[in-house]
Amino acid sequence: MSEPIRIGMIGYGFMGRAHTNAYKRVPDFFPELKYRPVLQAACARNEEKVKAFAEQWGYASHETDWRDLLKRDDIDAVDICVPNNLHKEMAIAAAEAGKMILCEKPLAMNVAEGKEMCDAIEKAGVANTVWYNYRRIPAVSLAKQLIDDGRLGRIYHYRSNFLQDWTISEDVPQGGAATWRLDSAAAGSGVTGDLLAHCIDTAIWLNGSIVDVSAMTETFVKQRLHAETQQVQEVGIDDACAFLCHFDNGSLGLFESTRYARGHKALYTLEINGEKASLRWDLHDLNRLDFFEHADGPETRGWRTIHITEGEMPYMDKWWVPGLCIGYEHSFVHQVADFLKNLESGQPTNPTFRDALETQAVCDAVLKSGADRTWETV
Amino acid sequence: MSEPIRIGMIGYGFMGRAHTNAYKRVPDFFPELKYRPVLQAACARNEEKVKAFAEQWGYASHETDWRDLLKRDDIDAVDICVPNNLHKEMAIAAAEAGKMILCEKPLAMNVAEGKEMCDAIEKAGVANTVWYNYRRIPAVSLAKQLIDDGRLGRIYHYRSNFLQDWTISEDVPQGGAATWRLDSAAAGSGVTGDLLAHCIDTAIWLNGSIVDVSAMTETFVKQRLHAETQQVQEVGIDDACAFLCHFDNGSLGLFESTRYARGHKALYTLEINGEKASLRWDLHDLNRLDFFEHADGPETRGWRTIHITEGEMPYMDKWWVPGLCIGYEHSFVHQVADFLKNLESGQPTNPTFRDALETQAVCDAVLKSGADRTWETV
Amino acid sequence: MSEPIRIGMIGYGFMGRAHTNAYKRVPDFFPELKYRPVLQAACARNEEKVKAFAEQWGYASHETDWRDLLKRDDIDAVDICVPNNLHKEMAIAAAEAGKMILCEKPLAMNVAEGKEMCDAIEKAGVANTVWYNYRRIPAVSLAKQLIDDGRLGRIYHYRSNFLQDWTISEDVPQGGAATWRLDSAAAGSGVTGDLLAHCIDTAIWLNGSIVDVSAMTETFVKQRLHAETQQVQEVGIDDACAFLCHFDNGSLGLFESTRYARGHKALYTLEINGEKASLRWDLHDLNRLDFFEHADGPETRGWRTIHITEGEMPYMDKWWVPGLCIGYEHSFVHQVADFLKNLESGQPTNPTFRDALETQAVCDAVLKSGADRTWETV
Amino acid sequence: MSEPIRIGMIGYGFMGRAHTNAYKRVPDFFPELKYRPVLQAACARNEEKVKAFAEQWGYASHETDWRDLLKRDDIDAVDICVPNNLHKEMAIAAAEAGKMILCEKPLAMNVAEGKEMCDAIEKAGVANTVWYNYRRIPAVSLAKQLIDDGRLGRIYHYRSNFLQDWTISEDVPQGGAATWRLDSAAAGSGVTGDLLAHCIDTAIWLNGSIVDVSAMTETFVKQRLHAETQQVQEVGIDDACAFLCHFDNGSLGLFESTRYARGHKALYTLEINGEKASLRWDLHDLNRLDFFEHADGPETRGWRTIHITEGEMPYMDKWWVPGLCIGYEHSFVHQVADFLKNLESGQPTNPTFRDALETQAVCDAVLKSGADRTWETV
Repeated sequence: MSEPIRIGMIGYGFMGRAHTNAYKRVPDFFPELKYRPVLQAACARNEEKVKAFAEQWGYASHETDWRDLLKRDDIDAVDICVPNNLHKEMAIAAAEAGKMILCEKPLAMNVAEGKEMCDAIEKAGVANTVWYNYRRIPAVSLAKQLIDDGRLGRIYHYRSNFLQDWTISEDVPQGGAATWRLDSAAAGSGVTGDLLAHCIDTAIWLNGSIVDVSAMTETFVKQRLHAETQQVQEVGIDDACAFLCHFDNGSLGLFESTRYARGHKALYTLEINGEKASLRWDLHDLNRLDFFEHADGPETRGWRTIHITEGEMPYMDKWWVPGLCIGYEHSFVHQVADFLKNLESGQPTNPTFRDALETQAVCDAVLKSGADRTWETV
Repeated sequence: MSEPIRIGMIGYGFMGRAHTNAYKRVPDFFPELKYRPVLQAACARNEEKVKAFAEQWGYASHETDWRDLLKRDDIDAVDICVPNNLHKEMAIAAAEAGKMILCEKPLAMNVAEGKEMCDAIEKAGVANTVWYNYRRIPAVSLAKQLIDDGRLGRIYHYRSNFLQDWTISEDVPQGGAATWRLDSAAAGSGVTGDLLAHCIDTAIWLNGSIVDVSAMTETFVKQRLHAETQQVQEVGIDDACAFLCHFDNGSLGLFESTRYARGHKALYTLEINGEKASLRWDLHDLNRLDFFEHADGPETRGWRTIHITEGEMPYMDKWWVPGLCIGYEHSFVHQVADFLKNLESGQPTNPTFRDALETQAVCDAVLKSGADRTWETV
Repeated sequence: MSEPIRIGMIGYGFMGRAHTNAYKRVPDFFPELKYRPVLQAACARNEEKVKAFAEQWGYASHETDWRDLLKRDDIDAVDICVPNNLHKEMAIAAAEAGKMILCEKPLAMNVAEGKEMCDAIEKAGVANTVWYNYRRIPAVSLAKQLIDDGRLGRIYHYRSNFLQDWTISEDVPQGGAATWRLDSAAAGSGVTGDLLAHCIDTAIWLNGSIVDVSAMTETFVKQRLHAETQQVQEVGIDDACAFLCHFDNGSLGLFESTRYARGHKALYTLEINGEKASLRWDLHDLNRLDFFEHADGPETRGWRTIHITEGEMPYMDKWWVPGLCIGYEHSFVHQVADFLKNLESGQPTNPTFRDALETQAVCDAVLKSGADRTWETV
Repeated sequence: MSEPIRIGMIGYGFMGRAHTNAYKRVPDFFPELKYRPVLQAACARNEEKVKAFAEQWGYASHETDWRDLLKRDDIDAVDICVPNNLHKEMAIAAAEAGKMILCEKPLAMNVAEGKEMCDAIEKAGVANTVWYNYRRIPAVSLAKQLIDDGRLGRIYHYRSNFLQDWTISEDVPQGGAATWRLDSAAAGSGVTGDLLAHCIDTAIWLNGSIVDVSAMTETFVKQRLHAETQQVQEVGIDDACAFLCHFDNGSLGLFESTRYARGHKALYTLEINGEKASLRWDLHDLNRLDFFEHADGPETRGWRTIHITEGEMPYMDKWWVPGLCIGYEHSFVHQVADFLKNLESGQPTNPTFRDALETQAVCDAVLKSGADRTWETV
């Protein structure tokens, strides 16, 4: 019989739901694991709402002060699903309380905060991971595997976009529960921390460190109503951000993110061009990986669309039968499963806080470069 | 607080897992429902296996004789997830025991069986549905809505395929737990009942009744080892089946199914051509619906790829945010949710046994036409 | 210096333009050929129009009676680009006059006519070909090559459609220069001879003979104004036609054609499923061939999209550089080039009249099956 | 009867063939034009080769010194199809000789050269155009029309790539007739002038002027054999180049070009995101334009794939029938047709030398930015 890992969830928004769903599904689909998550407590300031959330999803209890949650002996792991400006304090306190930590991305408001967090975590020696969930979309995991197997050879190019269109209207407010991602006080940055951070995390994982960047940032809508103050206020975040970069392996990178690309909802794309082969993937078509291999004969050389549904593919032996798609939420299930499996051997679960700090450093350099119109070394 | 509908699950195979997962997820994602499924008992002949299944998925108990299951007062609904040759007896007994019934498709081995089942069900007056789950892929539900709204106008053509490739090797056995779908004694037919039945169900739902058919059936591999008898035996099922048909509305239909289409795993496709617009969809790309509308101006007329992820789309307000895909399994969650919602008002949940009988009648006509090389009236 | 083949063109419609363009381009792109086409005379009943056509395209002279054209000593080859009901008489007379013949498809109004034509042609021993031009789209030529090389193994399935939507409006007339294809007196049949004949020709070329057929034909619009008589008359052609068939190699075929598939303009599609590999292609994307090969490793197995633009591909060394597309009209250039090249060695140019007669036989069987609702042996 | 414009063609390479083909096809497909091109003389230093070229394509004469060509009274227009380092001298001399000029892109080696050329051309008052042929791919022309009609509203983003993979091997030489594009002495730059110049020209045409740029350039293979000197020499060109930019209308641009993107042959892509709609196109699929319009209802909003083959589309009434594709070479035919038509009214044919100078200015700024790692104002 499996042993419980008792989860204390802080937050109940979009990510709170996605993570909770993951915890609940892991025992059904990964029955071989030694550990299983148990929904011990949900925590948020608004008691009415957190109570309803706990009841709906099956948390055994609720708290309204995260410090109280950390004091409880019956909590093994804390999941931080709150706006970015709250990550640091919670994570450091949780580490000091000896809790395992699963923290929503981006790691922190900036590198300085992130370093403090990493130091505290590592000092405490607690298991930790940051929810850069896209690493565990099976198609992306397969990309990693093919690269590690040397199928691409020397890499020349990496390009990645994350395109949305939900803030084009000037009537979208900033701040508050639904739109804190537009409020620089809560989010730190706009698309850079929210979207590009995903692109950067995957890029570093697949292609290694980024050395320097030249960025361009833009705020198209300069003022928005603030949902909490009910005042029209300056918008402090970046609506769009693009950057050029060099990777440590000599390849060139090109990244872009925006919330003003009409027609794209969550179009995270990536493409890698190597000497021997190329790969590309996008989130709107997440069950597929495109692959081009030069070694194919000249008559039949072409981009292959690999439909990632067969049991040989990463994680896919856990789900259905060939041809049947999984969805976005499964990436979280896979991350929980890996986290639990790694607990058995004591291995870290990537990306750790330390891994996420590197992504944070690139984000900081990007924002600085965008502000100063200079190349910045990471 | 919601009221329990206590489920008795018969079978623990691929469909047993898919349905169970659906029962478990509904309360999380459809919290407004009055009823919630409760995993009361799992039932199968092999006690060791059914016990392990019950433990893994959280069924409160298990049974090894389905007749015992039906006798239990603490079971409100029975889910029949066993080979086709067992459907009739179980369904009739369940109806007589006053249980609600959720039955895996196809309804029965043939129309004669199906009629008996419908009669028993309707006599008992129990809630019932058959798991033609593809109706509740949001893209397919949207297709239904667009057709009902008159967006297509008069229909001229309907074409639908279900293509797989998993039985090309002669080494695949017939019979037994994993491959009973190749054994005519258990399955009744091959691709006709397994795959075409899905195509036919959706077609009737979207485009109305089928009047007559001309079919062609083929068994490419004539003999296979039987997994249970360990004898090489004649293969009695259809490996491939295609048919022409007329719909009651005057449109023409073309259907094909096979397990010998190299490169296709579960490629269920459909396309409808109407006077004003056309629609197409396929299961390998299940989050998309293609739509062509002639009323678009000549400069910008084209096939639209509708990425079905926004909250306005059928069922999608229950899941994530725009751009984020769901998967195959969600169709089952939607069917459970609709079943439970309809219980509140006493309305039937399509497809009912009676609806599924019409699909069965088309299947029977198709098989007869394939055998006799004649047009058959349904 | 190359030697002239003096062309006498009968007709100046869509096909007259396409063939003429091909004759003019061959010497530029196939300079190695011993023979070159020379535009000697254009012929049609309407003198004003044929004169204008001849001047526009550069024919050295014009005729208004095709019998006069055949009498001329300075004509080596006759190109028949007129409605189907005129093919037989012209082709037989041209053969008797010792002219080479390039005849627009379909070969004839029916098999009986076609046989007479073949007999006359073969008796005369003149070089001949029928303009089933799609064989020489490079992607289709490559498909032939891959099949002949055994890359697909045993074939299980062949499916092919030709979908258009231009006759949905009841206001489209029948008969006359622009719409003779809707007039059964001129065309013989509707989509069967116009569109399915292309599908059948390619199918026989790629997959061998068709043994028997079961067809369904439909005329959606029963009456149309006749452009010449200005009377509303019964429509005698098939608006849509679909058929099932068996190939001689044991594979199953499924064909469909219509002019009522809203959203499709000239969507000729084909797909072949073999034991080892599958192929698919369509005319709206004519520079691509999709290919799936099971021998690819399980990690990277997928449908390849081969963009047919490199010099190793059939005919493509004659055109531009990798990545640059060619169009529809190039298929005719290739057929002229092959015809001229084969003249050097005296080899026939496929499809010959005799080859086209086999396609005609399938068309006749299809139409008979559609009328009688029976399986017909070809 | 149309009047001749007697063409003197300098060069016989890839572009010499493409332009010559265009001159020959225009009278057939644009018979209404007042002027028609006449192939009067081909010119190149190698007499044997230029003579063969002239004979193959039908030039009435040949020359081996372009100065002699310019002296001839029977030449109305000169087409400059030679390496970039020769453009300036030829163009200025041709202008002084009063010839119309059609010059291959990029305009010149740099802005300084380009200015001299523009001044000379404008002083002479001769008709002129630069072969940025992609403006006249019908899909791109349609994009221009939709933007000019205000269908996109305010523009936020423009992104464009031109990806190839033909120089990955270190064995590809630089210099000489086939590979002068890798020789900085002949080409001036690498992908910037060869490929990005196309992207920039289209971008300025569709989206207005570029204000400033931040670029990154790279030479992956540092030394190559020179085909003429037979020495291994430093590679002076940019193998890859990417840049960020601001447009004058406030939108953000992102451009990338490389010859090291394995799997892409001539993948010129562009995408424009506006407030109301977005557009995207690529050269591997040149007959299609993708279009997303927010005003479509929420149920059916999606990316439309417009298959550009109907007569309402730019230039398409000149070719075949709906559904039938054209190819790369047709863009040149359209440019010749427009050039001839504009001669009738005396209007300039875009892009003129002056238009191309603006593209040159962006290229220069990009190269300077890449070298200096700074933002450069154009």
